Amino acid sequence: MNWTGEITKAAERTNGHVQVTPVLRTLGFGLPFAVEMKLEHMQHTGSFKARGAFNTLLSSEVPQAGLVAASGGNHGAAVAYAASKLGHKARIYVPEMAGPAKISLIRDAGADLQVVPGAYANALEMAQAYEAETGAMQVHAYDAPGTVAGQGTCFAEWEDQGLEADTVVIAVGGGGLIAGALAWFDGRKKIVAVEPQTSCALHAALEAGAPVDVEVSGVAANALGAKRIGSICFDLAREKGVTSVTVSDEAITAAQTALWRERRILTEPAGATALAALMSGAYQPSPGERVAVLICGGNIAPDPLASQG
Amino acid sequence: MNWTGEITKAAERTNGHVQVTPVLRTLGFGLPFAVEMKLEHMQHTGSFKARGAFNTLLSSEVPQAGLVAASGGNHGAAVAYAASKLGHKARIYVPEMAGPAKISLIRDAGADLQVVPGAYANALEMAQAYEAETGAMQVHAYDAPGTVAGQGTCFAEWEDQGLEADTVVIAVGGGGLIAGALAWFDGRKKIVAVEPQTSCALHAALEAGAPVDVEVSGVAANALGAKRIGSICFDLAREKGVTSVTVSDEAITAAQTALWRERRILTEPAGATALAALMSGAYQPSPGERVAVLICGGNIAPDPLASQG
Repeated sequence: MNWTGEITKAAERTNGHVQVTPVLRTLGFGLPFAVEMKLEHMQHTGSFKARGAFNTLLSSEVPQAGLVAASGGNHGAAVAYAASKLGHKARIYVPEMAGPAKISLIRDAGADLQVVPGAYANALEMAQAYEAETGAMQVHAYDAPGTVAGQGTCFAEWEDQGLEADTVVIAVGGGGLIAGALAWFDGRKKIVAVEPQTSCALHAALEAGAPVDVEVSGVAANALGAKRIGSICFDLAREKGVTSVTVSDEAITAAQTALWRERRILTEPAGATALAALMSGAYQPSPGERVAVLICGGNIAPDPLASQG
Repeated sequence: MNWTGEITKAAERTNGHVQVTPVLRTLGFGLPFAVEMKLEHMQHTGSFKARGAFNTLLSSEVPQAGLVAASGGNHGAAVAYAASKLGHKARIYVPEMAGPAKISLIRDAGADLQVVPGAYANALEMAQAYEAETGAMQVHAYDAPGTVAGQGTCFAEWEDQGLEADTVVIAVGGGGLIAGALAWFDGRKKIVAVEPQTSCALHAALEAGAPVDVEVSGVAANALGAKRIGSICFDLAREKGVTSVTVSDEAITAAQTALWRERRILTEPAGATALAALMSGAYQPSPGERVAVLICGGNIAPDPLASQG
């Protein structure tokens, strides 16, 4: 796969459909060094997932039966939004654990929403059955080349915006986003993969030497709770090299709190997971190493405006 | 006053003390045109006020008695923060209407906090009495050259970041921020002043031909509720020219909601007031006119993380 070419084409294709998200350089969070951040939670539907969704839809012949996707919430919202913007119908399967904020996000985008018991893997099974039955096009949340190339545009964009870091720290669920980073940077930057201790499919796969099933739970599970790492991600991680660390739920919550208190950046737990690796010391940069953190998702529950006067 | 020189010196002086805040260009909010935004609510202590506070403290001989300030909340938090970082003591008077989020922000910065009944004007009276009694240095929230020059650095920075707009839309309370804009842009850009219908000291002054007292109330009153526009702002508004519009509380709340729902930018009502002028049609740009909106404050109450599991 010529990833540089695929991601460059994805960036051209999705230009105008996705939001160019802001970047900043900031001190704080108890860290003795500045951090570059990209505020990708300001993407359409509140996460980077809109990039992969638009790239997939814009590079495919969508059948009459429309689209189908399974999602912990953010991918479903992105596919529903992209389908609505491009005039396609979409059926989205989400597990109950997606939570009310993400479920109403998908419903508001006008998708045919199916809430199923259990976790992401259960939703994926039902989406695959629907695909087989109707001929709808499956938009995989992370383990498809169009999805990975779309997510890779986030890093191409960041370099255009002047990214200086030696090291980019990224939260990992199924691995679509970090696969995009590994594919785009192609060894030019060090990539740190951060997973919750309670949902660490990439970490487990790297230890086992192959993707394996893991249990998923914890505060970030509705975004990072993939049972098994995607094979595209796993292969890229082995080929390009990745530093894999895990963080506790407490560290994630502390980072989420610090992002709001210090910088008025409000994210869901998954969106603070990469920063948690720095704040907790799970990843300690060398002296002089310049570090960047991707803020990947903002779909916090409950809705922060619900309690306003 | 050589404002260009003052603001340039303020930018040099405060460099490294204030946060360079991110910018973006975005479509949405029901508007048929793109809007440039600067996310100044990500400034230290959640509003642009840190710029004026640092500029004042760094350009003054602070007396033994320390600093005193009166504030609807955001200025007090900024002075408390700057004082703490630079090793000065600070007494801050805030009216009860500042609300618990802003009051605890000031307390957390280690200031000697005095909560007084009534509105901003009452807090200012007490701060002036304390200044006369102790010799502490008064840091005015908006009507002092050091404050205005500090706020002006926000716009110098924005131009450095590639601001393209013909018109910059800014919320107005006492007028320190918009005075900084008028002083910096010096007629090079059209400036639109947006005030709540229920707190519109600049609008009333422009109609009366001189600063006059107004009643203040409404959702943004703890940030924009100045009883009388600052004289520096009023003079600059007359000299450089300003377009003054007002918006309803409903329009402010709608803009606040849209910023969160569409772009995951969480602000206090004052922070959404400039956008409310575009969304409500209170200010309608001409065809082809490029528009920018400053997001000025993020100190929402109650704390959005208080209800998290």
